Amino acid sequence: MITGKTRLYGIVGDPIEHVRSPEVYTGYFAEHGINAVLVPMHIRQDRFEDTIAGLMNLGNLDGLLVTLPFKARLVGHASRLGTTARMVDAVNALRREADGSWSGDMFDGAGMIRGIERKGHSLHGRRALLLGCGGAGSAIAVELASAGVSALRIVDRDPSKARALVEVLRGAFANCDIDFGEADTTGRDLIVNATPVGMKPDDGLPAPLGPLASSVLVADVILSGDRNTALVEHARRYGCATFNGKDMHSGQIEAILDFFGLQRTP
Amino acid sequence: MITGKTRLYGIVGDPIEHVRSPEVYTGYFAEHGINAVLVPMHIRQDRFEDTIAGLMNLGNLDGLLVTLPFKARLVGHASRLGTTARMVDAVNALRREADGSWSGDMFDGAGMIRGIERKGHSLHGRRALLLGCGGAGSAIAVELASAGVSALRIVDRDPSKARALVEVLRGAFANCDIDFGEADTTGRDLIVNATPVGMKPDDGLPAPLGPLASSVLVADVILSGDRNTALVEHARRYGCATFNGKDMHSGQIEAILDFFGLQRTP
Repeated sequence: MITGKTRLYGIVGDPIEHVRSPEVYTGYFAEHGINAVLVPMHIRQDRFEDTIAGLMNLGNLDGLLVTLPFKARLVGHASRLGTTARMVDAVNALRREADGSWSGDMFDGAGMIRGIERKGHSLHGRRALLLGCGGAGSAIAVELASAGVSALRIVDRDPSKARALVEVLRGAFANCDIDFGEADTTGRDLIVNATPVGMKPDDGLPAPLGPLASSVLVADVILSGDRNTALVEHARRYGCATFNGKDMHSGQIEAILDFFGLQRTP
Repeated sequence: MITGKTRLYGIVGDPIEHVRSPEVYTGYFAEHGINAVLVPMHIRQDRFEDTIAGLMNLGNLDGLLVTLPFKARLVGHASRLGTTARMVDAVNALRREADGSWSGDMFDGAGMIRGIERKGHSLHGRRALLLGCGGAGSAIAVELASAGVSALRIVDRDPSKARALVEVLRGAFANCDIDFGEADTTGRDLIVNATPVGMKPDDGLPAPLGPLASSVLVADVILSGDRNTALVEHARRYGCATFNGKDMHSGQIEAILDFFGLQRTP
């Protein structure tokens, strides 16, 4: 039941009709007796600047989720940014603070970390191989370094993008051995796919990985529904623990509810 | 269930927590299988201009209700105004047209007309006495004249306000005998209270009305819950048909759903 006291959350994007967040978050609010809704807010790209500031003035709007193509453009509308948002120069969530100002952060990577840790695995000291450093990949790279991996190899078909990210990360995480290059699994005990490879059923592996030790953790950002991606199948063949897009999404929702101050479960 | 495809309606005001529209309209949408919600949108008065234009840019916002103190300020944000809105220089609803522009109108009076007509009474040719010509009273005056009353006496403790309204109405409704003055019931067969008198249980009558013929229709804008206002009690004592704030509100919701193109019942 929506009343005059209902607090608002929104997800902004263009297009917006495909987003799942309104169901997921509004369902969570209803289950936990929180008088709030999360509604889709469609902002046309050519009207972004004229729209977003007005929207953020709404007195009962407590938070925003941000999807394509606005994750970078909303950075300038936050008074404060979290570490990940600052390093990747993008946000996917903003919350209203008690003084009325807005804080933003990027949780596209935090979900993966939570998804892995919630299944009882520690990331500390692992030697990670990260495939892809676009929006999600960059965020995951920051989170992996924050979580204490001892080494991080970044692979991207655009080496200049990988190089730029490595430079940013090296400045912040001096104790982590960070580089970019080929998808070499030697000595790696954590492999993360953050490329789009695997979205289509016949996509195959995101890189020629070869045999894996069973102690390697393998995570894939791809939301593949009931189907396993080729990467997850490959990893399971070698007895590796695997984490999929669904694990990552659950973790991300949890992280964002925490950020919004709405997490009611331990 | 709110999804990415859900269409938005909002009610703007300051304060906003007391409004009932979110429950009423969202309940109606749910009952009629319309994938839409009406949410409260709190706009601080000192941020009105910075906020409203951005809000109205939202691509999936199809309509707005307007409550205090913004009914006059929103007039300038509509590309087209209905007759009543133009005459009273205020709107309480705006809808998005197919070309993306906004049309506004004022339904604070239409609800009273609908409430009376839906109970089988015709207003055509009646000689009306209207008490009060503030926001609701002005709108009711326009609607009464539009509905074809043959005479309309407007009573207000501020005669200059009554005079100004009479001048506007005379210009538009040449066939209606419109004046302002005392609350004289002689020859009147429709009495409408649009003053706040009756909101408090011990308020008494909005004017010293005296005995009434049973053919007189008596309408009161006051929402008095289960209690009858003194005016309604007085009218019933003389066998008059009465209409209260609840009748008016039901009629207004119906009129606004029509305006939004969402009325599904005949």
